[in-house]
Amino acid sequence: MLETILSPLDVRNLTPAQAEALALEIRQVIIDTVARTGGHLASNLGTVELTLALHRVLDLPRDKIIFDVGHQCYTHKLLTGRQSLQSTLRSQGGVSGFPKRSESEYDVFETGHASTALSAALGMARARDLLGERHTIVALVGDGALTGGMCYEALNDAGSRPTQLILLLNDNEMSIARNVGALSTYLTRLRGSKRWIGAKRAVKRGLNRLPLVGAPLARTVERMKRTVKLMLIPGEFFEALGFAYLGPIDGHDIAMLENTLADARAMNQPVVIHAVTQKGRGYALAERKPEAFHGAPPFFVESGHRRAIKKNGVVSAASVAGETLAALAQEDARVVAITAAMPHGTGLLRFASKFPDRFFDVGIAEEHAVTLAAGMASSGLRPVFAVYASFLQRGMDQLAHDVCLQNLPVLFLIDHAGFIPGDGATHQGIYDLPMLRAMPGLTVFTPCDSRELAAMIRAALTLPGPCAVRYPKDLPEKLGETAPCGRWRRIVGGDGPALVGAGHAVLVACETAGLLRAQGVRCAVWSASSIVPLDTAALEALGKHALIAVLEEGVIAGGLGEAIAGHYAAQGKKPQILRLGVEGDAPGAHSIEGLLKACGIDPPLAAERILGGYHAK
Amino acid sequence: MLETILSPLDVRNLTPAQAEALALEIRQVIIDTVARTGGHLASNLGTVELTLALHRVLDLPRDKIIFDVGHQCYTHKLLTGRQSLQSTLRSQGGVSGFPKRSESEYDVFETGHASTALSAALGMARARDLLGERHTIVALVGDGALTGGMCYEALNDAGSRPTQLILLLNDNEMSIARNVGALSTYLTRLRGSKRWIGAKRAVKRGLNRLPLVGAPLARTVERMKRTVKLMLIPGEFFEALGFAYLGPIDGHDIAMLENTLADARAMNQPVVIHAVTQKGRGYALAERKPEAFHGAPPFFVESGHRRAIKKNGVVSAASVAGETLAALAQEDARVVAITAAMPHGTGLLRFASKFPDRFFDVGIAEEHAVTLAAGMASSGLRPVFAVYASFLQRGMDQLAHDVCLQNLPVLFLIDHAGFIPGDGATHQGIYDLPMLRAMPGLTVFTPCDSRELAAMIRAALTLPGPCAVRYPKDLPEKLGETAPCGRWRRIVGGDGPALVGAGHAVLVACETAGLLRAQGVRCAVWSASSIVPLDTAALEALGKHALIAVLEEGVIAGGLGEAIAGHYAAQGKKPQILRLGVEGDAPGAHSIEGLLKACGIDPPLAAERILGGYHAK
Repeated sequence: MLETILSPLDVRNLTPAQAEALALEIRQVIIDTVARTGGHLASNLGTVELTLALHRVLDLPRDKIIFDVGHQCYTHKLLTGRQSLQSTLRSQGGVSGFPKRSESEYDVFETGHASTALSAALGMARARDLLGERHTIVALVGDGALTGGMCYEALNDAGSRPTQLILLLNDNEMSIARNVGALSTYLTRLRGSKRWIGAKRAVKRGLNRLPLVGAPLARTVERMKRTVKLMLIPGEFFEALGFAYLGPIDGHDIAMLENTLADARAMNQPVVIHAVTQKGRGYALAERKPEAFHGAPPFFVESGHRRAIKKNGVVSAASVAGETLAALAQEDARVVAITAAMPHGTGLLRFASKFPDRFFDVGIAEEHAVTLAAGMASSGLRPVFAVYASFLQRGMDQLAHDVCLQNLPVLFLIDHAGFIPGDGATHQGIYDLPMLRAMPGLTVFTPCDSRELAAMIRAALTLPGPCAVRYPKDLPEKLGETAPCGRWRRIVGGDGPALVGAGHAVLVACETAGLLRAQGVRCAVWSASSIVPLDTAALEALGKHALIAVLEEGVIAGGLGEAIAGHYAAQGKKPQILRLGVEGDAPGAHSIEGLLKACGIDPPLAAERILGGYHAK
Repeated sequence: MLETILSPLDVRNLTPAQAEALALEIRQVIIDTVARTGGHLASNLGTVELTLALHRVLDLPRDKIIFDVGHQCYTHKLLTGRQSLQSTLRSQGGVSGFPKRSESEYDVFETGHASTALSAALGMARARDLLGERHTIVALVGDGALTGGMCYEALNDAGSRPTQLILLLNDNEMSIARNVGALSTYLTRLRGSKRWIGAKRAVKRGLNRLPLVGAPLARTVERMKRTVKLMLIPGEFFEALGFAYLGPIDGHDIAMLENTLADARAMNQPVVIHAVTQKGRGYALAERKPEAFHGAPPFFVESGHRRAIKKNGVVSAASVAGETLAALAQEDARVVAITAAMPHGTGLLRFASKFPDRFFDVGIAEEHAVTLAAGMASSGLRPVFAVYASFLQRGMDQLAHDVCLQNLPVLFLIDHAGFIPGDGATHQGIYDLPMLRAMPGLTVFTPCDSRELAAMIRAALTLPGPCAVRYPKDLPEKLGETAPCGRWRRIVGGDGPALVGAGHAVLVACETAGLLRAQGVRCAVWSASSIVPLDTAALEALGKHALIAVLEEGVIAGGLGEAIAGHYAAQGKKPQILRLGVEGDAPGAHSIEGLLKACGIDPPLAAERILGGYHAK
């Protein structure tokens, strides 16, 4: 049936039975697609009916849907002319796994990080009101994203100057990881909806008799009814913030969803619809282990086993970091670990199971995570916050204000630094390094192999102040000879241009050097294993090369190349310095090779640019 | 009496009547001190009794108090051996207006930005538990700070794994500005406490009769009682998040505060004490206009009028920006303005009164503010977010993820960029520039006089993408000749070294050039009025100087000097470049002159360093 859906009108014209059948078909398409291409499975299986109901009730594209985090947009894409998702999802030039304004007028706001949708939706609603337009705006937000503080900032603001706006709360009882926090407990309480609704009914009945209680009440009865009504609706949390609350309802019941959405659309105020869904719905293996099928590599549908991916001798940096940290925690009882809802992705599962009392999953709350760590460090612990580079952006103020200005010994394990395949621009770890370099007193180590990573984590935990160890998703086990922490390492010798990189860029530099060697130019390759402080002895040695090419999987502005250029310029030394990295717009490619190429730093292009600079001298 | 207070023990030994008398005395000391030195008046007058009660009930320094924002710590400092605050507050080498760990063992965590205290307190509580210690931890948080999302992240986390922790909510009905948002409305409701308590009593009485209602209830009565009880306590919001709730109580009643604190201290779980206070309490002028006495310059106690401060012909950049924006909003109905609780500080009061429907104060919620602006821009408005440089740090992820990656035309008016006197390290606008430079597609203008500021705001609102106009607290009205937006401006001509600065650093450079000219060295001075993009024509002209000195009121790492060094290094050009700015630790001085001196860039030191570099060539 899916191929007959060419526009939202086709979805609206389906009978209820046809809509149910289409849901089944879409679910199968999603399973087959993600099994082949990899992608976000569990979250998309959980939102098939939600999305269908939205498309059937709303008047798209006049009405707007903003997908929080965005990884649950596959059904939406399949219903809006992007059925090629089935063959091209997450591939070069194909359909993105996240909302993309350049792909479709039905994608009205791009997302990738959590907890932004309600703020954006409120901005759109206020623009609509000021411009005299009339349409409906829906933010589809998971319960996990609600652990992020900016959701609450938006709820608070929305309630202060009410306008029409629907928060469709997709309550699937887990965010990326098992959901955490008090709000989760609160939602769990609500989830026992039958009991709750029964109790509510009984209390209401009791309260209708309240005027009988006696004289003291008589004068205030009007006000009290209002107050009590507020307290008796299960959404007291949302109501306290000025939202009307509808639910909880079954998020897989299309008819029920349609009715509730229509009700909410008719209300001229902010409304929360609380829909309970199941992550992984319809694929038994994902229902049982939704976390394993959150961001999944390609797999076999029957067994759920991963398809083998050739790894070229690299290992997962997260697993190395996690193992190392668990070993160090065994030696030192002060070591504690913090994650913002990513115990799996950051390699902390082992730590969590060995040291449950010393492991803290704070929800999707990077701001709080950083300052929590600062508080711990101020009181004698050695806290470690493991986080992806792009998500740490959300804790930059806390890193400066709470950790670095007080010189507190917090260790940041910054994973997924540099180019990241598959998830698009929002997940690239290419903006954090200039921010880290600006922090007062923060040491920044950048290992380029797994041995170095382990050694740096150990060394970092002995430092008296804050430290960041920043590494890519995968690392080779061993690259060149070891050196003391803080020293740069010469991986390849040569008297031609010197190539300098950090993290995965060192591998790119090695490959580039190989290409140049084939053309008779003998390049040296260095790993800049410490960005702060710079290794001045290494820079002294490097200064003998006429040309230094700095390869960066990151923005050039404020990056390693500039740091090196600044160093020599201050000294009055004159090597020519080529900065090869990200300039201007974010690169949009889906593979690491594509990203390197888009920035002109894949080995052939880099070699060409270096040769041009070298021969021009 | 104050001079007899040498330690917390002395405070505890006072009789209740003596404590009341001491409160009066402290209040007068604070008024007299701030009238002379400037500082935070209203918030400190509001927390005299709160602080006294804390000192009388807690066992300091074993127990810990964390002051959110920190600007309400004067009473605490006066009670802990820092009575010299009266003569040295906010002056060079004197007592800081914020908690400072280096000043006293009673200052356990440094603050300056809002909404961090509860996260830090939770970290300390968890450290205490893991280390097997026993003491009480109190976070003193204003209702304004509660509009910041990270407070809620911490509340949520604290409720998930309960431990002993007291959140003392200082509810003064305004944060820096009039408090905003739905939570504020909610707290206002609670504040009518007599009525509330009356209603509560009546409802409870009614519910005690509930079992009479009939059979359906009988089975669930136990659970229902629990549920209903939760709903009937006014702190339902906090209780939903797992905190016990005590209050509301009178925050100026020392005895009541002591009793409630003692109760909370005896509870082995997170507790909120809701204390209602009055900002400016005891100084009639501040009671009436607390915002005018938030961060106050020196004033006359009798009249409240400001003491004249010589301004050297500079004007408030905020007022220029605000006036300009109001004028542009008159011309273009799409222009809307956003502030994060600082309509006064960012100069938006005129805009707010002229265009109330187009003005949005979102609370202390920079994250939400940025994404709200992105949503508005995506829907056809021209939103302007006016914010101080150090506070924008909290919205960096949103700036990257929601604004820049989507290339949305949001204008950031970044005030208080560079060195800021009086408020210490947390308020310095010296870390944001490297972060801004890293943003994809963000234009960054840095005017050095008020005419240029106005012209740049006008130009920025015509750009198709995001733009930041970044300026210091004060600007001269006119410096040199005008030039088109985006072009650097030569302020002074000369064939010796070239001095380059942005914003207030241009004035510093002019003064430095004056000193050098007196020694026979004719320096040129340039304003780098556009940081992104760089002005390549200007760099071409500057490249003719043998030495370029870049003066920066900001960190060197990733700053303007590095950008310039990177530019020439890539081109193979060889001017020597001195980067003069902030290196290593944050400068701690209290005056702009002191800050410049601490970084070696006040005019005499800068002149000396430039001369050294120039003669060495």
